[in-house]
Amino acid sequence: MTESVGSLYGLGIGPGDPELITVKALRLLRSADIVAYPVADRNKEGFAYSIVKGYLTPEQTQVPLYFPFKLEQSSQPYYDLAAQTLAQYLEIGWNVAVLCEGDPFFYGTFMYIYERLSSQFPTEVVPGISSIMASAAALGVPLTYRNDVYLVLSAILPASVLKAKLAVADAAVIIKLGRHFSKVVEVLQELGLYERAKYIENATTSEQRIIAIADVNIQEVPYFSMIIIPSQWQGSNIDEI
Amino acid sequence: MTESVGSLYGLGIGPGDPELITVKALRLLRSADIVAYPVADRNKEGFAYSIVKGYLTPEQTQVPLYFPFKLEQSSQPYYDLAAQTLAQYLEIGWNVAVLCEGDPFFYGTFMYIYERLSSQFPTEVVPGISSIMASAAALGVPLTYRNDVYLVLSAILPASVLKAKLAVADAAVIIKLGRHFSKVVEVLQELGLYERAKYIENATTSEQRIIAIADVNIQEVPYFSMIIIPSQWQGSNIDEI
Repeated sequence: MTESVGSLYGLGIGPGDPELITVKALRLLRSADIVAYPVADRNKEGFAYSIVKGYLTPEQTQVPLYFPFKLEQSSQPYYDLAAQTLAQYLEIGWNVAVLCEGDPFFYGTFMYIYERLSSQFPTEVVPGISSIMASAAALGVPLTYRNDVYLVLSAILPASVLKAKLAVADAAVIIKLGRHFSKVVEVLQELGLYERAKYIENATTSEQRIIAIADVNIQEVPYFSMIIIPSQWQGSNIDEI
Repeated sequence: MTESVGSLYGLGIGPGDPELITVKALRLLRSADIVAYPVADRNKEGFAYSIVKGYLTPEQTQVPLYFPFKLEQSSQPYYDLAAQTLAQYLEIGWNVAVLCEGDPFFYGTFMYIYERLSSQFPTEVVPGISSIMASAAALGVPLTYRNDVYLVLSAILPASVLKAKLAVADAAVIIKLGRHFSKVVEVLQELGLYERAKYIENATTSEQRIIAIADVNIQEVPYFSMIIIPSQWQGSNIDEI
């Protein structure tokens, strides 16, 4: 008689609104024995956990994974430990769901777990709604028409790099603004993109704010904020082939 | 006594697997009086409709919207007619859900309805899982790490344009391959990206196929196919700040 191992699920749980989880991720979440999620601070429950906690049952075991995300130290030892922690549950046959804000394979932390465990255990990744798509919907701005070139950039990149990369795009999104907000705004002004750009923070959460870029307080720009530069084309001027 | 108008919902219903609809889109879909969806051919029921038909009830009225998508003619008159058709239902207070494969604001057809009706009727857009995220999950390839520059391109662009744009990206996706497959493969070879690239067609549908690029029959590449060039960085070599 052989014991079978458990399955690992990387579940995209979306941008913040608990209803923006997929039916599939919700089914797998509810059937998991172990629900694991990142935490960065003992005083916070973790954003991913906060999104889905209403769906969990008392029978499910919750396993916080500590990922400190500090600039001055590598995160890799923390991923090693998280993988070892989850592997012990998988080996005895428990199914493990790892919660991932947005989409697991799009700027997510699950990728580091995936590369450590997916060759050893049956693994399934369930895509999720990224905060970018949710932000475009909340702003009411169509992102890309037809054959637009679409670009996503992190605000951490130097101004010269942002400028060079943005030049190739018809539509672009600049994520992780935080303390890089002013630099990004200067780049947009230099490129003539300022008028077209839209700002949003904490999309679909109770803290969602949509404000004019000119009204943003640069001291208070959160990490989960972005600027969307929608397509330069107008839908009604072009055809949809 | 005033009659109130209905609400318009642009529902992202995901890439093909009916379970990849969000809980929110499913709720709004089930509560809609009118369910409208694109059809391009009298002999086909329409891809969007095929995804959600199992969720519909006999009480809901189905309204196909004919969008022929022919190169030799403009699609705009068809969007005009579709908007007029839906407006008459909204005016008498019916809620209208328009089905959108993938995400409504990401290379979708709903944007043309949105720009015609959203100023006249209460309108909500519900983001959906794009076929790109679903394809990355199915392929098991993390797309973007950390501060990667991410690019989406349509295969219809000329080879020289594809080459120039791809040069700025750390990770890229080339969509709508179809008859442009060979051109794209040549570009990948010239840029040294061929080994890293992965091919998938009809992700998450019953026709999903994952094959080596070298084994693709260039006569049979569907429109709903893509090549993903995942991040050039390896997760375990870098840190996640």
